[in-house]
Amino acid sequence: MSIITLTTDFGTKDHFVGAVKGAIYSELPDAKIVDITHEISPFNITETAYILKNSYKSFPDGTIHIVGVDSELSNDNKHITIELDNHFFVCPDNGLISMIASEINPTKIVEINIHDRIESSFPVLDVFVQVACFIARGGNLTVIGKEIKDYKKLIEIQPKVNQEKNKIIGGVVYIDNYGNVISNISKKMFNSIGRGRRFKVSASRYFFTKIFAKYNEVTGDNAHDSIQYDGSRLAIFNSAGYLEIAIYRSNLETVGGASTLLGLNYRDSITIDFINDSQPDFSPLT
Amino acid sequence: MSIITLTTDFGTKDHFVGAVKGAIYSELPDAKIVDITHEISPFNITETAYILKNSYKSFPDGTIHIVGVDSELSNDNKHITIELDNHFFVCPDNGLISMIASEINPTKIVEINIHDRIESSFPVLDVFVQVACFIARGGNLTVIGKEIKDYKKLIEIQPKVNQEKNKIIGGVVYIDNYGNVISNISKKMFNSIGRGRRFKVSASRYFFTKIFAKYNEVTGDNAHDSIQYDGSRLAIFNSAGYLEIAIYRSNLETVGGASTLLGLNYRDSITIDFINDSQPDFSPLT
Amino acid sequence: MSIITLTTDFGTKDHFVGAVKGAIYSELPDAKIVDITHEISPFNITETAYILKNSYKSFPDGTIHIVGVDSELSNDNKHITIELDNHFFVCPDNGLISMIASEINPTKIVEINIHDRIESSFPVLDVFVQVACFIARGGNLTVIGKEIKDYKKLIEIQPKVNQEKNKIIGGVVYIDNYGNVISNISKKMFNSIGRGRRFKVSASRYFFTKIFAKYNEVTGDNAHDSIQYDGSRLAIFNSAGYLEIAIYRSNLETVGGASTLLGLNYRDSITIDFINDSQPDFSPLT
Repeated sequence: MSIITLTTDFGTKDHFVGAVKGAIYSELPDAKIVDITHEISPFNITETAYILKNSYKSFPDGTIHIVGVDSELSNDNKHITIELDNHFFVCPDNGLISMIASEINPTKIVEINIHDRIESSFPVLDVFVQVACFIARGGNLTVIGKEIKDYKKLIEIQPKVNQEKNKIIGGVVYIDNYGNVISNISKKMFNSIGRGRRFKVSASRYFFTKIFAKYNEVTGDNAHDSIQYDGSRLAIFNSAGYLEIAIYRSNLETVGGASTLLGLNYRDSITIDFINDSQPDFSPLT
Repeated sequence: MSIITLTTDFGTKDHFVGAVKGAIYSELPDAKIVDITHEISPFNITETAYILKNSYKSFPDGTIHIVGVDSELSNDNKHITIELDNHFFVCPDNGLISMIASEINPTKIVEINIHDRIESSFPVLDVFVQVACFIARGGNLTVIGKEIKDYKKLIEIQPKVNQEKNKIIGGVVYIDNYGNVISNISKKMFNSIGRGRRFKVSASRYFFTKIFAKYNEVTGDNAHDSIQYDGSRLAIFNSAGYLEIAIYRSNLETVGGASTLLGLNYRDSITIDFINDSQPDFSPLT
Repeated sequence: MSIITLTTDFGTKDHFVGAVKGAIYSELPDAKIVDITHEISPFNITETAYILKNSYKSFPDGTIHIVGVDSELSNDNKHITIELDNHFFVCPDNGLISMIASEINPTKIVEINIHDRIESSFPVLDVFVQVACFIARGGNLTVIGKEIKDYKKLIEIQPKVNQEKNKIIGGVVYIDNYGNVISNISKKMFNSIGRGRRFKVSASRYFFTKIFAKYNEVTGDNAHDSIQYDGSRLAIFNSAGYLEIAIYRSNLETVGGASTLLGLNYRDSITIDFINDSQPDFSPLT
């Protein structure tokens, strides 16, 4: 019994998702199909990567992940299957994989070559489902494609560090369901560059001198009166390990979230300045 | 094989839901995971309660319901597990349970205390999934928490009845996908206070002297010509048993629904006046 | 183990979908439930038909499809079960089936008559689930209804062909997640009327003299530089086999899609004029 996940920009109204699920069950009646999301902004590879890299590891080894974003076949956009970190990804070779797994080497990469048998304007349905079910049945990747050595690299916008090593310049890479603004600055990088020094996070025209580990740390010792902190802005290392600028208990539909209230959009810069005269009572985040 | 349901305010775009499902399948490969909804308005406990109390009973006994709304742990917001009405709820102790089950006594309540082993800013993923899978495997609640006697009570806004017992003053508690406006006045309360008397329902500046049992009763005997009734306003006891003000075949995206057309919003009042000189031909709703 | 699909206008926020799934699992613990969509525009039968006819065939034979759109029982809107093309449909007799299966004769039609045992304002939950689970357990349709000879026909707006057979006048029947505009002109009709002649597609004030088989044909031989074609308008026979007017890599939320950019709405006309002096180098689409 295999798990097959779906990450697409199909939306959930059209027939696309239903058709794909029907095709999987027709091939593999015992499959467990899990929607990661179908609400990727159309053709947005950065979003796809952010969502997939923060969810795939929760799944058991051997899970097969179908990615249906910008997947039309062309000379410049091959279909590939990658075995990586004990997971399988069936996806277009559009740079996505390099953003998911920049630190992990793939075990195997094949360029799918079953297209001569399948003519399709809906490759997720006609090609990716076939490949995923073939893998689920234990098939060898080399039967459905030829092994290749490399995949397309897309340079994710990485945070920059200045020469003096006292400034990190990052950017907004994602805005979540609560309107919270997520940067590409990881806790790991923060600790490695910051080395316990005091710091100031700047985002739009706002400053933060603390980065929380939980949202409700913003209420300090006043948890019993936490509602008065609703709407407070804060910086946090989120559950994915990235610096996030948030509004405590925000609601995009009513009061707004960090993105709208603080005027922070996708690709805007977020910087951290470190201050050298560090105080003895300051300890690094763990 | 256990059923685990999810009710959250995560939305369906971010990685949160996918990560939680992956974690459940990693722990419990045979789980059946059912989304109740992920579209709760952020942090809205009233909405969560309305949706959950009207869906949980359809599930088989033994179903485990994870609730991920306002679930960050604090001194004021413990994590609890409740066995109630032969179902299990894994949720924050934020008053939600009192709104779901005001009339049913829990069989057992435990305060989850596995947090010393888990440090987390994503408790649904790291704590609730563990607890739910533990219960699904038949584990005893007292292993993952200490039994407590009570949970937080949140007084749901209840309809008021005047001293003369001829007026019920209720309020809007939910607006559904069709824009229909749902009050907190139950059919049970209506029958108990009204005792067969004639009545007038007032909502915004509109009046209703009938409460239907089915939407298409508004067409009377003209079912073959029902389209001319599209857009008619009506009062109905909905399938959940509550007084609802509806627009016949409404569409929020085009013509609008009862909420927009009649100007009825969350917390607005809806009243019923009963008239004492009841007619002999009037029979109570059953 | 049976597959039961759901196609409704319930939305995914309210308790309706959760309640229906709970009821199915209560009746049939081994069911596989697949959401086709819950985002049909309220009461829209044309949309329901387009989505269902383009997804049901992907499912294995024997799949049971519950349709919860405009399903309230009335003298004019009976509940029926149809066996068709080796699939089962449990749905209102509101014309929907005639639009799904205009070219296929049903094997069996029954009018559901278990309503005397069930009083309901939520027939999908109380009636359709019962019927679907009964069929899934191998039950005979005639136990839950009386066989009837015919179902309601709803004339889908069909494309018209002029007397000279050099013009097809079709219309927009659906707008998809990318804002692409789908007509009711099938590739089959195009080939049959066009017989290889040159043609001009007119939609709003735009013209197309090519109909692609894949979206990225719009880039010609410049696939390596495809981004410069983003936003180009094109005509394509989509994966469902219908003439579609699309914007290459459109995004409704940002730049807009064909519907907004070209001003094409539901029911607008799309025409094809065929030109008789066909060039020898023109070959019909296959």
